[in-house]
Amino acid sequence: MRRMHIDELPGHVGARARVAGWLHHQRRLSRMTFLLLRDASGIAQIVVEEGEVAAELARLQPETVLEVEGRVVETELEPGGVELHEPAVRPLAVTTTKPPIDLRRPVLTEQLPLQLDHAAVSLRHPRRRAIARVAAASVAGYRAALDALRFTEIHTPKIVVTATESGANVFALDYFGRPAYLAQSPQFYKQTMVGVLERVYEVGSVFRAEPHDTARHLAEYVSLDAEIGFIEDHFTVMGFAREAVAGMVEGVATRAADAVALLDLDLPDVPPEIPVVDFLDGQRLIEAATGETVVGEPDLAPAHERWLGEWARREHGSEFLFVSGYPMAKRPFYTHPEPERPAFSNSFDLLFRGLEMITGGQRLHRYEDYIAALGALRQSPEPYERPYLEAMRHGMPPHGGWGLGLARWVTPLVAASNVRETTLFPRDRSRLAP
Amino acid sequence: MRRMHIDELPGHVGARARVAGWLHHQRRLSRMTFLLLRDASGIAQIVVEEGEVAAELARLQPETVLEVEGRVVETELEPGGVELHEPAVRPLAVTTTKPPIDLRRPVLTEQLPLQLDHAAVSLRHPRRRAIARVAAASVAGYRAALDALRFTEIHTPKIVVTATESGANVFALDYFGRPAYLAQSPQFYKQTMVGVLERVYEVGSVFRAEPHDTARHLAEYVSLDAEIGFIEDHFTVMGFAREAVAGMVEGVATRAADAVALLDLDLPDVPPEIPVVDFLDGQRLIEAATGETVVGEPDLAPAHERWLGEWARREHGSEFLFVSGYPMAKRPFYTHPEPERPAFSNSFDLLFRGLEMITGGQRLHRYEDYIAALGALRQSPEPYERPYLEAMRHGMPPHGGWGLGLARWVTPLVAASNVRETTLFPRDRSRLAP
Repeated sequence: MRRMHIDELPGHVGARARVAGWLHHQRRLSRMTFLLLRDASGIAQIVVEEGEVAAELARLQPETVLEVEGRVVETELEPGGVELHEPAVRPLAVTTTKPPIDLRRPVLTEQLPLQLDHAAVSLRHPRRRAIARVAAASVAGYRAALDALRFTEIHTPKIVVTATESGANVFALDYFGRPAYLAQSPQFYKQTMVGVLERVYEVGSVFRAEPHDTARHLAEYVSLDAEIGFIEDHFTVMGFAREAVAGMVEGVATRAADAVALLDLDLPDVPPEIPVVDFLDGQRLIEAATGETVVGEPDLAPAHERWLGEWARREHGSEFLFVSGYPMAKRPFYTHPEPERPAFSNSFDLLFRGLEMITGGQRLHRYEDYIAALGALRQSPEPYERPYLEAMRHGMPPHGGWGLGLARWVTPLVAASNVRETTLFPRDRSRLAP
Repeated sequence: MRRMHIDELPGHVGARARVAGWLHHQRRLSRMTFLLLRDASGIAQIVVEEGEVAAELARLQPETVLEVEGRVVETELEPGGVELHEPAVRPLAVTTTKPPIDLRRPVLTEQLPLQLDHAAVSLRHPRRRAIARVAAASVAGYRAALDALRFTEIHTPKIVVTATESGANVFALDYFGRPAYLAQSPQFYKQTMVGVLERVYEVGSVFRAEPHDTARHLAEYVSLDAEIGFIEDHFTVMGFAREAVAGMVEGVATRAADAVALLDLDLPDVPPEIPVVDFLDGQRLIEAATGETVVGEPDLAPAHERWLGEWARREHGSEFLFVSGYPMAKRPFYTHPEPERPAFSNSFDLLFRGLEMITGGQRLHRYEDYIAALGALRQSPEPYERPYLEAMRHGMPPHGGWGLGLARWVTPLVAASNVRETTLFPRDRSRLAP
């Protein structure tokens, strides 16, 4: 008999069926034992009458792997509308130790560090698993949206000879006796590939030797990058970013509907035009409302991003807000200045529920502008020569793009409070395992 | 006027249209100049009558970025069936240096090292770019096939505390003052995630401090991994691998049809049942045919893989061949032995056109089997404790999976002779840039 997934059982009422999964929980009454069996698709109740089988089962620890054959019986009491009766139970892997995490409650009650230490077990909780499905569906939706817009997916090297964003916060490694670094972003490579394919995206690991220990920083994370040629300015890029985010919402709605239901998620609407506030105007709004002195600061503090997120919800009915025109002071050397206001830049952040999820903008595209920008920073162009500056020297169109931290999207989406709750095996200053 | 892609021009015969791209080549006759403009979608011919514009264009280097507005005229002489007349030409980025790579010939004629040094330019060649599209379409097809089989995509850490496959060939890095390594594969994590999601796949970078300098080894490459729970044995895994490969072929055929045409690719048929030869039987076939002593060797040499590839084509009409039952001696500690013949393993390779593209097999799933396997190698279980052995201790079903090197698939598919021709920015012992 073919094993079926638990969510297929409702189609087989009256027949005998074989399922397999993990012993999620058992409840023993005087004449009856109720087993909850968990597989990747759901949880099924199995009714065991008094007798030899029940006595044997009583000895099994949670998470024992079982194969169960039984008759599919309709019931109004169980979530799927069915349960299994008259079961034959065969253990596939017997566990002898009690799990370090209690998986049977509706939410995990252990402290986060304990959950993370025992990720092999805590990720099995239906809510944690659902979050992993939401992340996968988000990425699939991102790709689908960009594929439809003629983007090509690329894979660029993570071992690089030059630190991407700056000399700080970079992991060094020994590369056959030479110094090398882990890429902080695919920035130089995705720009270079605009010269080849015009529109590219990459989904991959990036690495930051992040000194902060906060709820939103990790030393390694999944970045969804994109880069687009032949743009007008950063507003063209923002238009594509809107499509990418709409694709992510669509991906979650259509590919992870079960997870959305289990987590009781409130999926956001992505407005056809996401509202935009100019950086300086945003600062003035915050000043006027809070009385704090904000204008003149080169960046927004997290509290200010939250304030603007609330403002966008209130004023525009939007959970998304573009902030455009950040000061050049805090942006990297490849940033394109605003033509009319060169202390500010053709750049943007996208806030989702008050958290920065995307940073992007227009890049310089003329070789001589790069030489000038590096010169102003007293940096030698030599480390950037190949492939980056060579691409610029041999013809690059106006272009721009963004980086999107996957956990910066999933965390507010599932109303988690820490990116470590939405990353399978997080890495930070103090955590290198599991 | 909206810019359109060159492959949209045939729908606009008689109208004026705006295109933009790179000056691929120009040919000057006495009264006429023919420009070839290349964008991501193709190459268009632009006919410039004698006069001021032509004189200005004559000064432009190849790869200058141009915007061109002109009238779309039908012609039988050009590939797309159209060309642009009466053009207005506007440079978007003027290049003043001759490119280091000549892009106008049907194939690149420079030596491979020179092509790789100048990847920013050589990747712009229509054939190199088409290979990048074939790679992207392969990955998209892989995901589509596995998504349909209820797999979930995962992203696991690349910075790890324990060398994955062995202590050798691993890159070491400084992780906030502690030693860490770059993951040689997602092996431990994908197995752990079978306990969570049953069927998982990952597409990501893996890292090998490869001492070999061969046409098929790189220090960093894209690996397409999968892992599946509740299998019978490795033959179940091979069935899923067949579906994944069929998805890749389908992906290339449907998502990269232009690239297939440009490269004149002969896409392989994936038989409903890919032929399987037992490792030892394969060795006996090679011995009988070549007279070499092969039986007793713990692995197949590349020449023997090629021989078996030819044999499969001849005897089974298949460009794919599974070799199953490799000796345990050369397989890692987590490999499941053959129950009836424990010196051999429930493992397999998939050869495509005589090149190994997949390695996979059934893994051990009982905690005590892991302890015994590590004990036999005199290895402490401690470095493997979390998350790996903890997953095994708390209930894991019989499971298995594979790793598939993207370049090991694309290289024979496009009839290239070196994985460096199908990897955007390859990394090897002597190459850390571009």
